Amino acid sequence: MHQLDPQSAAPPLLARLLTTRAFSEQLCEPLTAEDMGLQACPEVSPPRWHLAHTTWFFETFILKPHQRAYRPFDERFEYLFNSYYNGIGAQYPRPQRHLLSRPGNQEVLRWRRQVDDALAELLSHPDHDPLIDALVALGIEHEQQHQELLITDLKHSFSYNPLWPVYQPRDDDERPAPEFRWHEYSGGLVETGADGAAFCFDNETPRHRVWLDPYALASRPATCAEFFAFIEDGGYQRPELWLSDGWDWVRQSGARAPLYWLLDDGAPHYYTLAGRQPIRFQEPVAHLNYFEADAYARWCGLRLPTEAEWEHAAAGQPVQGGFIDNRRYHPQVAPAGRDAPAQLFGDVWEWTASAYLPYPGFAPAGGAVGEYNGKFMNGQMVLRGGSCASSQAHLRASYRNFFQPHLRWQFSGVRLARTLDPNRESSRGPTPTIIA
Amino acid sequence: MHQLDPQSAAPPLLARLLTTRAFSEQLCEPLTAEDMGLQACPEVSPPRWHLAHTTWFFETFILKPHQRAYRPFDERFEYLFNSYYNGIGAQYPRPQRHLLSRPGNQEVLRWRRQVDDALAELLSHPDHDPLIDALVALGIEHEQQHQELLITDLKHSFSYNPLWPVYQPRDDDERPAPEFRWHEYSGGLVETGADGAAFCFDNETPRHRVWLDPYALASRPATCAEFFAFIEDGGYQRPELWLSDGWDWVRQSGARAPLYWLLDDGAPHYYTLAGRQPIRFQEPVAHLNYFEADAYARWCGLRLPTEAEWEHAAAGQPVQGGFIDNRRYHPQVAPAGRDAPAQLFGDVWEWTASAYLPYPGFAPAGGAVGEYNGKFMNGQMVLRGGSCASSQAHLRASYRNFFQPHLRWQFSGVRLARTLDPNRESSRGPTPTIIA
Amino acid sequence: MHQLDPQSAAPPLLARLLTTRAFSEQLCEPLTAEDMGLQACPEVSPPRWHLAHTTWFFETFILKPHQRAYRPFDERFEYLFNSYYNGIGAQYPRPQRHLLSRPGNQEVLRWRRQVDDALAELLSHPDHDPLIDALVALGIEHEQQHQELLITDLKHSFSYNPLWPVYQPRDDDERPAPEFRWHEYSGGLVETGADGAAFCFDNETPRHRVWLDPYALASRPATCAEFFAFIEDGGYQRPELWLSDGWDWVRQSGARAPLYWLLDDGAPHYYTLAGRQPIRFQEPVAHLNYFEADAYARWCGLRLPTEAEWEHAAAGQPVQGGFIDNRRYHPQVAPAGRDAPAQLFGDVWEWTASAYLPYPGFAPAGGAVGEYNGKFMNGQMVLRGGSCASSQAHLRASYRNFFQPHLRWQFSGVRLARTLDPNRESSRGPTPTIIA
Amino acid sequence: MHQLDPQSAAPPLLARLLTTRAFSEQLCEPLTAEDMGLQACPEVSPPRWHLAHTTWFFETFILKPHQRAYRPFDERFEYLFNSYYNGIGAQYPRPQRHLLSRPGNQEVLRWRRQVDDALAELLSHPDHDPLIDALVALGIEHEQQHQELLITDLKHSFSYNPLWPVYQPRDDDERPAPEFRWHEYSGGLVETGADGAAFCFDNETPRHRVWLDPYALASRPATCAEFFAFIEDGGYQRPELWLSDGWDWVRQSGARAPLYWLLDDGAPHYYTLAGRQPIRFQEPVAHLNYFEADAYARWCGLRLPTEAEWEHAAAGQPVQGGFIDNRRYHPQVAPAGRDAPAQLFGDVWEWTASAYLPYPGFAPAGGAVGEYNGKFMNGQMVLRGGSCASSQAHLRASYRNFFQPHLRWQFSGVRLARTLDPNRESSRGPTPTIIA
Repeated sequence: MHQLDPQSAAPPLLARLLTTRAFSEQLCEPLTAEDMGLQACPEVSPPRWHLAHTTWFFETFILKPHQRAYRPFDERFEYLFNSYYNGIGAQYPRPQRHLLSRPGNQEVLRWRRQVDDALAELLSHPDHDPLIDALVALGIEHEQQHQELLITDLKHSFSYNPLWPVYQPRDDDERPAPEFRWHEYSGGLVETGADGAAFCFDNETPRHRVWLDPYALASRPATCAEFFAFIEDGGYQRPELWLSDGWDWVRQSGARAPLYWLLDDGAPHYYTLAGRQPIRFQEPVAHLNYFEADAYARWCGLRLPTEAEWEHAAAGQPVQGGFIDNRRYHPQVAPAGRDAPAQLFGDVWEWTASAYLPYPGFAPAGGAVGEYNGKFMNGQMVLRGGSCASSQAHLRASYRNFFQPHLRWQFSGVRLARTLDPNRESSRGPTPTIIA
Repeated sequence: MHQLDPQSAAPPLLARLLTTRAFSEQLCEPLTAEDMGLQACPEVSPPRWHLAHTTWFFETFILKPHQRAYRPFDERFEYLFNSYYNGIGAQYPRPQRHLLSRPGNQEVLRWRRQVDDALAELLSHPDHDPLIDALVALGIEHEQQHQELLITDLKHSFSYNPLWPVYQPRDDDERPAPEFRWHEYSGGLVETGADGAAFCFDNETPRHRVWLDPYALASRPATCAEFFAFIEDGGYQRPELWLSDGWDWVRQSGARAPLYWLLDDGAPHYYTLAGRQPIRFQEPVAHLNYFEADAYARWCGLRLPTEAEWEHAAAGQPVQGGFIDNRRYHPQVAPAGRDAPAQLFGDVWEWTASAYLPYPGFAPAGGAVGEYNGKFMNGQMVLRGGSCASSQAHLRASYRNFFQPHLRWQFSGVRLARTLDPNRESSRGPTPTIIA
Repeated sequence: MHQLDPQSAAPPLLARLLTTRAFSEQLCEPLTAEDMGLQACPEVSPPRWHLAHTTWFFETFILKPHQRAYRPFDERFEYLFNSYYNGIGAQYPRPQRHLLSRPGNQEVLRWRRQVDDALAELLSHPDHDPLIDALVALGIEHEQQHQELLITDLKHSFSYNPLWPVYQPRDDDERPAPEFRWHEYSGGLVETGADGAAFCFDNETPRHRVWLDPYALASRPATCAEFFAFIEDGGYQRPELWLSDGWDWVRQSGARAPLYWLLDDGAPHYYTLAGRQPIRFQEPVAHLNYFEADAYARWCGLRLPTEAEWEHAAAGQPVQGGFIDNRRYHPQVAPAGRDAPAQLFGDVWEWTASAYLPYPGFAPAGGAVGEYNGKFMNGQMVLRGGSCASSQAHLRASYRNFFQPHLRWQFSGVRLARTLDPNRESSRGPTPTIIA
Repeated sequence: MHQLDPQSAAPPLLARLLTTRAFSEQLCEPLTAEDMGLQACPEVSPPRWHLAHTTWFFETFILKPHQRAYRPFDERFEYLFNSYYNGIGAQYPRPQRHLLSRPGNQEVLRWRRQVDDALAELLSHPDHDPLIDALVALGIEHEQQHQELLITDLKHSFSYNPLWPVYQPRDDDERPAPEFRWHEYSGGLVETGADGAAFCFDNETPRHRVWLDPYALASRPATCAEFFAFIEDGGYQRPELWLSDGWDWVRQSGARAPLYWLLDDGAPHYYTLAGRQPIRFQEPVAHLNYFEADAYARWCGLRLPTEAEWEHAAAGQPVQGGFIDNRRYHPQVAPAGRDAPAQLFGDVWEWTASAYLPYPGFAPAGGAVGEYNGKFMNGQMVLRGGSCASSQAHLRASYRNFFQPHLRWQFSGVRLARTLDPNRESSRGPTPTIIA
């Protein structure tokens, strides 16, 4: 859930809504009718389900309670497209979403039209309740989250097809990554969390104090080349580099490279949304899980940043990088020469050393919408920043993403950190190995 | 595998081939593009996969080895659409067939066209090898088997959708089932199995001698009404009625009625390919597994027939009943008044008391096509007759169908049997309870 | 269940009872208190449980119903030590039997004393119901079955201990196996099954007619040397040799030799009840499952016998071989030179090609004791003969043992068979490869 | 791992060692030989294994590397009794520890004697390396941890036996719990973690600064009565009270009360080490997992304390309460009237809201002993205090215990906390419902 801030629901809300809604459908344009039902595992959902569920969200939380005359498109969809809101009712089993060939693609689009029209009418009414604006703003952010999932879920489902489906051909060029450097921060008693001046989710609040020892952050996320050196040094065969659960995961999964990497025949390739491609080693490495990010940092003699360290460094930085808006659907090589760490936002999410837990004084919103974030505060680790599948407008320094430590189908990478000695003049720290 | 009988590959072979191939596609006409990828569990396959795999069969076993100039549509399909032929090579994992959104529906149809054209050219050549005729005949039978699976798999996948998709509306009338009677057979040393005069699968051979004690068969399969009496008498709560594995299945599955029966709200309904419908109690009960058929027979104080008993009774009877050719996709009420048991063929397969094992002297064919039947002779029970989803031309008295004892997504029912006292004048046996 | 034959309960019944009861305890003498609770998997039971359950059998089926004054040792044991009799009541979960450290070893022995004393008193009464004699006879056979299981279960549980516990040192000598030969049978319409003249289990009845084509049986079970040739020829890597379920088992289990074989360091060893030992290749190979026995026969170009063929050959042969009575607990090399097949009884059970199904006209006994055999007639294959862990007095030609096809912790081996051409003068068949 | 502090290894180290070693064996005195092998699930270990593994620890980390003349008792034990130290080598599979009937109880005791004697000799040498003292001190703490596990594992394994084994009869009296009150703390920038002046584990270091908002802690852990009110209010049926993973656990486990509670027949009972007993409702509730503790706090409108809050409150408090030293093996009713929160130590561990993660600047020790704590810093929650199965001498304010959130076989309870409004005069907070 989110912090309701009626004031921030500025005039272009309806336009933002319709643009966002249209973008979801544009993302499906390269897909065939057959692709729209793909679901490779319980964690991912079919594209069609994303189109339906985001519509369900608006119908359930805005139209049904706040638009008296509204007639639901199909009463049975309340159950079919409820993701996890126990406060609304029972849910169609998540692992079976691919079995919902009906309603079909066209029917879901008709449902979207009906809901969009009703929302437009509601928002156009001059006297409408400001709470509706706040809920629409939330629904927009919710749909942006599902746009990211639509892309990452699709990549995952496609990856099971040995024909290596192409969602969009690659059109960018290779270039070298900038040199690895450290950015240093003196820390101290700092404030972290959202201050409530703009839209945020409830899990970013309340703003609170936290003590930070002096630390440094890497100037950019680790590259494929840097991570490949870890692989070549036996990283996936050495238990001492891994958390115990991580080592169990390595043994059970048989993993020996990031997800989608294909190392078995000739030159290293990976599956991307542009199909099977030679790995571009200067890019940020993506599709790591927490265990891999943590093991890589340990191999470097370094560590992951905490979320408070990350946020302290990112606060005030512009939200720049590769986003879904660029329609590349793949992380780009970091830009050169900046005073702040590059790619804090966009390209790849960055695993932190922080468990996803409530901030001191956290209270979820009341009602079913309160199930949005709070009930998941267990067993997950925080990621910060954003990825090439995130909307630029969706991100901010206080944003908390979270996934279970074994999952890696998101565009998730690693930015290294280290603790500085408070008593000594700080200096350049060790640089991780870079392969030629 | 089959017995090759080049003589029986009569002139209309090409016509039969093209009619059969076209029928597979006609079966998909009521389906949406989205439906074509549905796979609810590893045992069932998507409709599109059936269209592709049957094409693979012709391309792999006929065109590639016997048509020198033939260019495969896509070399990668050899792996993608191989079902279980280790002699051909590795297979795409069966539980993941729903993930093959590519090749899409139109591409699979184009493949079918290419293969059909090549087969037509091959068969039209005046000097073609008679072995090709035999293989085409086998391919036709193979495709008929997959037509039945396409229908039963589709019903199963649809049944997970609470919108209860309609494949085709119901248009038949209710009528009472004929009275239950016994048909008696004196048995003795009889011959069973195919005699090789017409097409048969290898598992029906060799014809061999078997001793039968005097026995009787029910005049028709058990009806929904008769099976409902078993349910109402606590059939699913009484371990003494079940085989040990069957009782384990009841407890683990929570089953308390045939598959697709919906007993929880008001009048009893079931899911059919015409959607959710009130149960018609005079029809043959379908979607039983072996454990249920066996428990029902035990509750009646009777037993299932052996496959030899069944075949001895069916030999020489006309292949009549409800088949896929009628396009009802649902068992029909038995016809009244005949001298032989009704519905031996069509409507519902009949579980027998016989394990699926090789006949004495059985030898599978050489090569990969020898994997068709023989390697499955373990852990399955034989069903005889045919169902409303079988092709009439595909069935015969010696036909052996087989499934694992816990599976029930086929149109599988039960015909009762009893042993007659050889020393006494036989008389009408006990009639199972019929509810009003 | 069994056929009750009060006449055969001859005078020495009490002596037989007490000898059998004492032998169960003697089998535990080499064991420590700690060993008595071992249970390596759900299929096996701890030695202490076997001592308790066999006592439960007498208390439940004889003393409670037939000895009015009898006071159960502990009412709670009815639940604790019920194996699978739903007619008696619920059962303590089988996989947890190792968790019953109480009642301890001494308490179980006290229970045995109480039950033995009560049985002795009951049998000593001159007017006792002959039904009691029949039930005691059944209880003796039941206890003999559990003595065999005690030994095979113990071997299995011990095998998980890398210290390779020694139950009893080996004291026999090596010698060569006799040459492989065929014994031929003309078959015809024969009778099979127990004739009821002596004790038998219900599953051996009724005696009935069956047709047999001419066939031959191997002169002895296959040896370790013969089976090793299969291994060396890639037997466990070639899918064409295996049933489909068998090949799945090979891949999932990673099996590449019989159970207990240790091929990884130097000379081939196996775990035996004498500890880790060099394999003696002239012995009958043991600890095969049905899939392995079947694959071996296919590799030989031969087949397994049916149970009717086996019984026809064994009928009238003396029950000779290596039994538990010899206290070797390991199969012995076949004796040389006989007119009939050697080792039909004892040493290793012989997998047949027959599924475990009811004989025509089979009817289990009434009451809970009717659960003894009949309810397991699904998904298992018949073994014939007996093993080095069977009691000699327990075996006969009509005896039907049965296990699921993937299980191999019994002393189970393979005797080859072949069908003879009825039209030709029969001759020596092909001899399977023997390694030097 | 631990912080090595040679100075604190004061003269009585050898006496402490021998007392601790003897106490492990005393804990086994009420057990039968049969009990010594019990292992109900992979998380628990048999008593005999605990006796062996603690001995392995001394032999592996002290005697082998530091006592040149030492001959291992049995080289094969290095593998058998390695718990999880990959740096030492492979490990016998944890779920199978109950299968190690050999070495038996007496042999393990002989091993203990040999190791104790060798340690005594080593420590008695006037010139021995002070590192040895530090390692012996660590081994003592390690053995104390296993004494606690021995008791909790035993309780768990015994609980599967419906005879409800008695380890030791109950001899204490009932009395009312003191009234619930709040203890308030103003927080601020405080230091937390061990300061290294005495023995501690590595995971308690380094001492570091943390900011705390004003908060209050409950005057005692929640009682059975208080938790029972949660149950009676439908606590286990209301998803809104649970974390999402917690609710999944409720549904999958079917839990509706703390572990060992028996609510199905008549008056509420629980299984204790004194057998099946009526619940004493004034005691601290035990055997909750994190999900239950968290749901209970949410139902109260309160929360769990963080580990820093807990430690800040406990720092400087005496280590008093019910410990394993009292040999009650069950939590006692809280004492009345104190100025600080009662039962911070002993009786029940207290779940905190903190994930088990490294403190800022944490570095595990080098070598295999560095696997002691650090590699488990994932997916677990911190518990603070100690329980009725902990050694008093083992506990301190900075001690961090940790378990996965679904586990509840430890004596784990819940102490409530709340955040105070920094701007208002603090006052007594809401008191959770107490049943009469």
